Amino acid sequence: MAADARPKARLPNGFVDAPATEVTERSEAIASLLETYRLHGFSPLETPSIEYLDALGKNLPDEDAPDEGVFALRDDDDQWIALRYDLTAPLARYVAQNRQFLPNPFRRYQFGPVWRREKPGPGRYRQFNQCDFDTVGSASMAVDAEACAVLSDALERLGIGPGDYEIRVNDRKVLNGVLARSGITDPAKQLEVLRTVDKLDRLGLDGVRDLLGAGRTDTSGAVTAGANLTDEQTELVLAFVSAGDPSRATVLDRLSDLVGDDPTGRAGIEELVAIDAALDAMGVGPQVVFEPTVVRGLAYYTGPVFEAVLTFETLDEKGRPREFGSVAGGGRYDDLVRRFTGQDVPACGASIGVDRLLAALRAREGAEAGRAAGPVVVTVMDRERTADYHAMAAELRAAGIAAEVYLGTQGFQKQMKYADKRGAAVAVIAGGDEFARGEVEIKDLIAGARRSEEITDRDEWRSDRSAQHTVARDALVATVRSILDAD
Amino acid sequence: MAADARPKARLPNGFVDAPATEVTERSEAIASLLETYRLHGFSPLETPSIEYLDALGKNLPDEDAPDEGVFALRDDDDQWIALRYDLTAPLARYVAQNRQFLPNPFRRYQFGPVWRREKPGPGRYRQFNQCDFDTVGSASMAVDAEACAVLSDALERLGIGPGDYEIRVNDRKVLNGVLARSGITDPAKQLEVLRTVDKLDRLGLDGVRDLLGAGRTDTSGAVTAGANLTDEQTELVLAFVSAGDPSRATVLDRLSDLVGDDPTGRAGIEELVAIDAALDAMGVGPQVVFEPTVVRGLAYYTGPVFEAVLTFETLDEKGRPREFGSVAGGGRYDDLVRRFTGQDVPACGASIGVDRLLAALRAREGAEAGRAAGPVVVTVMDRERTADYHAMAAELRAAGIAAEVYLGTQGFQKQMKYADKRGAAVAVIAGGDEFARGEVEIKDLIAGARRSEEITDRDEWRSDRSAQHTVARDALVATVRSILDAD
Repeated sequence: MAADARPKARLPNGFVDAPATEVTERSEAIASLLETYRLHGFSPLETPSIEYLDALGKNLPDEDAPDEGVFALRDDDDQWIALRYDLTAPLARYVAQNRQFLPNPFRRYQFGPVWRREKPGPGRYRQFNQCDFDTVGSASMAVDAEACAVLSDALERLGIGPGDYEIRVNDRKVLNGVLARSGITDPAKQLEVLRTVDKLDRLGLDGVRDLLGAGRTDTSGAVTAGANLTDEQTELVLAFVSAGDPSRATVLDRLSDLVGDDPTGRAGIEELVAIDAALDAMGVGPQVVFEPTVVRGLAYYTGPVFEAVLTFETLDEKGRPREFGSVAGGGRYDDLVRRFTGQDVPACGASIGVDRLLAALRAREGAEAGRAAGPVVVTVMDRERTADYHAMAAELRAAGIAAEVYLGTQGFQKQMKYADKRGAAVAVIAGGDEFARGEVEIKDLIAGARRSEEITDRDEWRSDRSAQHTVARDALVATVRSILDAD
Repeated sequence: MAADARPKARLPNGFVDAPATEVTERSEAIASLLETYRLHGFSPLETPSIEYLDALGKNLPDEDAPDEGVFALRDDDDQWIALRYDLTAPLARYVAQNRQFLPNPFRRYQFGPVWRREKPGPGRYRQFNQCDFDTVGSASMAVDAEACAVLSDALERLGIGPGDYEIRVNDRKVLNGVLARSGITDPAKQLEVLRTVDKLDRLGLDGVRDLLGAGRTDTSGAVTAGANLTDEQTELVLAFVSAGDPSRATVLDRLSDLVGDDPTGRAGIEELVAIDAALDAMGVGPQVVFEPTVVRGLAYYTGPVFEAVLTFETLDEKGRPREFGSVAGGGRYDDLVRRFTGQDVPACGASIGVDRLLAALRAREGAEAGRAAGPVVVTVMDRERTADYHAMAAELRAAGIAAEVYLGTQGFQKQMKYADKRGAAVAVIAGGDEFARGEVEIKDLIAGARRSEEITDRDEWRSDRSAQHTVARDALVATVRSILDAD
């Protein structure tokens, strides 16, 4: 094959490979999350990766190009199909299709990749993993409260303590009520205010005040047009976004004052009151707070929305403190099944962004946690004794210890380098002398690496046997086990 | 929304949803397979679902339509990208891209969905799961032998006994040697013979004899052209495909005679001899056989090929016996990495078709095994006592038992129907009387269902309390546990 006919080994923009340590970490985290969901009475469901584009809730794209934001193509029958962009839209399709056969409420969890055709950036990929649970078919606010309790349990099961996270709850009806009360009833204007409020983190209270009013000039001199609210309207909105407090009851009081007797606002308050009561009944404490600044981007939410935020500080690459922020989000989406059937099917659920959550945990624990746990490597000193080497590996495996016989073709030094590159904790060595004496040599590679850092004298290092154990052949498994347990 | 603007809730052709029992079964099987791979010293890797089409080894499609057989579309930069059709082609891309950082040999496993744009049929979907392990960078036949041993271990760990499966090994060089020896050296003609031999299962020895010779007229009168081999050539090929035997040594003798001194054939025989020796060294017995009829469809294999075949009989829907056949396949593909780099990188691995394997196990065990294990359902008799119901569910969860409080809005009878539809084994019931006495009622729904089949008299059924346990509140967890253990 001519060199220029060779394809280049590379991945499309926005896609990455996950090596062993990352896959192992992720599998353990997912197992923990799914166990939390299972214990709370959710059952697994797996919908396929590909759906009809219209079922995902996108309008048909124009003839030439698939829709923005999703990976879409035409099926054999010329209809548009696409990779799912989340796990909620496929759930709505599944429920609409199978409702008469399903228990009501229907409670399912699903883990899997989703794909978004968006601009990739650092830590922002076009394929990432979500881990969702949802309850479909109940309008009870106990479902929304339970979702917060499940998120809380899920984070704690992963070792994130009560002081290191917060579940923040808001209700879209409350802000809409506040706006309606001050005369802002146009949905487009309401949305503009919502989006401005969402910039609070970045701009601060004064910046948001400017943007709600006449507009804002930033330090570079760039001018952003404002929403042109009156001063009174602006102060009401600012009072709303400042209403947060560690006590749920305090926030309820403040919000209740702000919405006055606007019917939408009162409906929102009633929902939050019901969630508060259900949280109390579930024994959920101050880790769930009411926070009026929570917005959530997805358009399909109809009432309560919530997010899980990690509050511990980590350091970024340059040693500056940073907060990881939201690692999970959810809310109530009462209209998503109705899209298909016209029937009212209230629903509520949440999604944990597994990759983001793992990045946060990794940043907290530091890089050292990431060493791959490779298998025990049984080296091959004498090819005539291959059956003996395989017998050793088989014994280790029978004891639940991952083990392999070196199957390359290189000599002993290269085999030891291989064991090191594999992240093996232990190498097993047996040549003619060992076989003659009924012994086997077991090298503790982690202790060895530690000793090699301590010992500076070359001769001392050569004669150092502290990481080497010569034991009777039938003590192989017990010796390896004790080394692995000690590491 | 107008009714005719509503999308229909349906899936694209060839895609299916997997409900709870199936997902649970599959997750358990996959965990078992991956544990086998891990114990044998393979490490996890996750490549993304999407690759450049040229990296997958397909030629660029024409301008109008993506390539046959894969789901492909154009990326933002106008290059063709596609969903992977297997896990081997992405592995070759990964190794070519990262070789200098990887241990040699590189041993990885990967589980995940693959997508093929082929005609769907019964049990044949456009998205299905593969579970692969591969060793890249060693030309040793011990790797091929180890792959057979791993497949054998993997099936046995899933509960498939030694008599219920067979690993069948062949070497493409042997058949090519036999053909070359009888004067058939044209690769196109060799391929035609290979494809004819692959029809042995369906046509039998006589049918294949006809097709190798002048051609074949089937019972409907349809004529298929033959390969026009001479009688002598035909008999040599037939002797080759009939050379199988439970003893690996016997097959080696027969094949050795058939290839004579053709160099390609002798190279193939030497590979099989080395595999046989390595299998002996690994203590792998008669579950691995040499079987000259094994072909394997994929074009990239260069030497040994093998497949795992289930040999137990199951009954199809109409009660007729059927064999499930191949559930895993693999082989050596020494040229796949060279496509990218031009360097020789020998490789060998295998892929287990998880969905097919599970379908076989399900058919063997019968339908009864499929009952979903739903959570314990704590019913709500008195909404004022919600906190007490949540406390019960939390206690059960703390003991590792999945439990939920009923969160719908319906009455007691409907709640019991819900518990039934969820596949719950136990329902917990507590109203004013029970709370007053410090008791709780626990209903064994499985025993109840059994009793309701035994009891034909309506009054007897109403008064039957054998599936009902009224116990002290603090005996809740112990009682539920004992019911779950007994079921």
